[in-house]
Amino acid sequence: VTAIDGERLLAGLRTLRSFGATGTGVVRPTFSADDMAARAWLRDRMTEAGLDSTIDGVGNVFGRSRRPGPALVLGSHSDTQPEGGWLDGAMGVMDAIEVARALGEDPTTADLAVDVAAWSDEEGTYSSCLGAKGFVSEVDPGILADENVDGESVADALARVGLTTVPHIRFEPDRHIGYLEAHIEQGPHLEETGKQIGVVTSIVGIRQAIVTFTGQQNHAGTTPMHRRSDAAVAMFRFGTLLQDRMAAAAGPTSVWTIGRVTVEPGAASIVPGHAEVAVQFRDQDDAVLERMAAAVAETADEIDRNGPVRVIARQGDAPIAPTVMDPDLLGHIADAAERRVPGGWVEMPSAAGHDPMVLSHHLPCAMLFIPSIGGVSHDFAEDSTEHDIVLGCQVLADAVVSILRSAVTPR
Amino acid sequence: VTAIDGERLLAGLRTLRSFGATGTGVVRPTFSADDMAARAWLRDRMTEAGLDSTIDGVGNVFGRSRRPGPALVLGSHSDTQPEGGWLDGAMGVMDAIEVARALGEDPTTADLAVDVAAWSDEEGTYSSCLGAKGFVSEVDPGILADENVDGESVADALARVGLTTVPHIRFEPDRHIGYLEAHIEQGPHLEETGKQIGVVTSIVGIRQAIVTFTGQQNHAGTTPMHRRSDAAVAMFRFGTLLQDRMAAAAGPTSVWTIGRVTVEPGAASIVPGHAEVAVQFRDQDDAVLERMAAAVAETADEIDRNGPVRVIARQGDAPIAPTVMDPDLLGHIADAAERRVPGGWVEMPSAAGHDPMVLSHHLPCAMLFIPSIGGVSHDFAEDSTEHDIVLGCQVLADAVVSILRSAVTPR
Repeated sequence: VTAIDGERLLAGLRTLRSFGATGTGVVRPTFSADDMAARAWLRDRMTEAGLDSTIDGVGNVFGRSRRPGPALVLGSHSDTQPEGGWLDGAMGVMDAIEVARALGEDPTTADLAVDVAAWSDEEGTYSSCLGAKGFVSEVDPGILADENVDGESVADALARVGLTTVPHIRFEPDRHIGYLEAHIEQGPHLEETGKQIGVVTSIVGIRQAIVTFTGQQNHAGTTPMHRRSDAAVAMFRFGTLLQDRMAAAAGPTSVWTIGRVTVEPGAASIVPGHAEVAVQFRDQDDAVLERMAAAVAETADEIDRNGPVRVIARQGDAPIAPTVMDPDLLGHIADAAERRVPGGWVEMPSAAGHDPMVLSHHLPCAMLFIPSIGGVSHDFAEDSTEHDIVLGCQVLADAVVSILRSAVTPR
Repeated sequence: VTAIDGERLLAGLRTLRSFGATGTGVVRPTFSADDMAARAWLRDRMTEAGLDSTIDGVGNVFGRSRRPGPALVLGSHSDTQPEGGWLDGAMGVMDAIEVARALGEDPTTADLAVDVAAWSDEEGTYSSCLGAKGFVSEVDPGILADENVDGESVADALARVGLTTVPHIRFEPDRHIGYLEAHIEQGPHLEETGKQIGVVTSIVGIRQAIVTFTGQQNHAGTTPMHRRSDAAVAMFRFGTLLQDRMAAAAGPTSVWTIGRVTVEPGAASIVPGHAEVAVQFRDQDDAVLERMAAAVAETADEIDRNGPVRVIARQGDAPIAPTVMDPDLLGHIADAAERRVPGGWVEMPSAAGHDPMVLSHHLPCAMLFIPSIGGVSHDFAEDSTEHDIVLGCQVLADAVVSILRSAVTPR
């Protein structure tokens, strides 16, 4: 059984952390100077691991094994949130490099083909999962026009960092038999249940409803209570009632959030004439998402019927369907986890989005999670124990060997 | 009995409307070019009415009668809201000019002393009731530093319009025995009750509470419902519960409004960590205001106790105490109204703020209202019937004669 080098893995992670380090966190948004420096460094690490390495035309760092296929692609993203943690994405990239290197150094596994990817812009500084999209299909003009908060488009950013004329690395259907990614959980489930490894069965689907409240703007002094049509009052009632309705409609792991709230005109002495909320909800099961969507619509209808404010619910951002991971690949990860930590793993959905949302439409995908301390992520405080980091990488390596061996020698 | 000239009054009002006319409304914010042009025109109208007229060092247009006292000051403001109606303030100014002119032209009343004021910035483009404050006391440096939305201070605006070195017209305690103002109601009470004249007994007091909700900002996908401390959910519950609590605490004419709502960070996929609302409430009775303040605090406490979000209520803008009008002056207005429209008048509080909030601390004040069509104000659609406008001015004139006659010949 090939052992990964835990100290080497951790040392590499600490170096990657230094690109954009800010306190205990990392600020390394896509196509920033720190991001591009990190990508150059990652390319050199992939070369060091024996891979033919390049930064491609959408910013992906890709290291291709010189072995013939069948090959697995391992990876994650190396860009961060505007105020990100040091492990979100970075750990999966360094795990992938370590697995490729460790297997390449071990004569018993040196024949196995492991390609490594550090995808660009999973976090959507410009366009979510940009690199993964470029790997499986053409980057269409709509994506090239997507902008960051400063108004720079993907096309302009690629020109700025010198990637406009660089070729895109593409998915090879005859070679690539699957994609594996290790990631921190970014939630508290593993910690709460005392498990070391999460075998990720799916990525939850996301839906969004925009609910608008249209009343009558008026003077907050001279308009008697019985004459008011106050958009904020209707919104408060909607927000309160929705909690009960969603709790009834939801599954055990569903989440729902009213994260964006606007009340207009927003002056203390004016009765609000307009309000709007964004209701976002997530579940791994499309049937549950349907029930939750109905609960939002019914709650809006009920507040509307009660009057006097007009309440309308419509779809917000385009729905994201749940992503189902490949059961065969998952079985290998589960077996590997059971061998390393008997009883210490659990099947679970991912509540956060990841590159397999894009990749899984083209090749089988699977993910494993390690615990996040306190469930914290997208925050400078994000962390995991060194023990869990090293264990996760070893389980990944074990699963890779098992998958590639069974691909040539069906089990 | 002196008759005012209704056609002359309406013609003047239409001309004043032309300064800053925008559709059916008026945009004439304090110290704008339109506002200053209107003030120059008003000064000339006051001169035409036989008054010694000037624009003073805070922008007030003041016309002083050449008759010895006792004198009444009549007036209102000539500035408008950012998107104002044509009568708010303007009607009271033109009524005052018409009363001064009509009484001066009538040999039986030409001995009476009526001074006329068009106060500056009642609407608070820079500093609420700036002109009235300048009339009764020194303009302190804090007021001079108040800014409009473009960041121009009162001091800078006065310099720009050339008023920095111009003297301030001041309240004369030995001469001025009271202040009368006619105004549109800006609410629906007169129209709903079928009355033509409102005898304004008080201006409601205003209090404001700021309620903050402090939870834990978190990822809206990976944070399970049972681990959340969602500031928006607590805010929705507060807003809903407050409606019932305020209804129980309020008096028959109380109003309360949550007009300003912020939820942070305000992203659809982040559980809100912070929210804040401004609760404003008004009543003519300080005891009722106390009960309403207690209702806000108790509602906040209850949501806080229910957890997990921390809820704290604190005072917002400095409270404005109710303004009580002078009963003697009110009696004259009521008598005048009863003579013109028997049974067609009603005593009522003003739910909106007016210059007597400032002036009444220095001299007895009284106001009369005429109906607002549909109760609409602070809006281009603001309007009143010509009949009501002319009637209001006549009642004002009658009351002025009655007050000044009783001041020299006690009734």
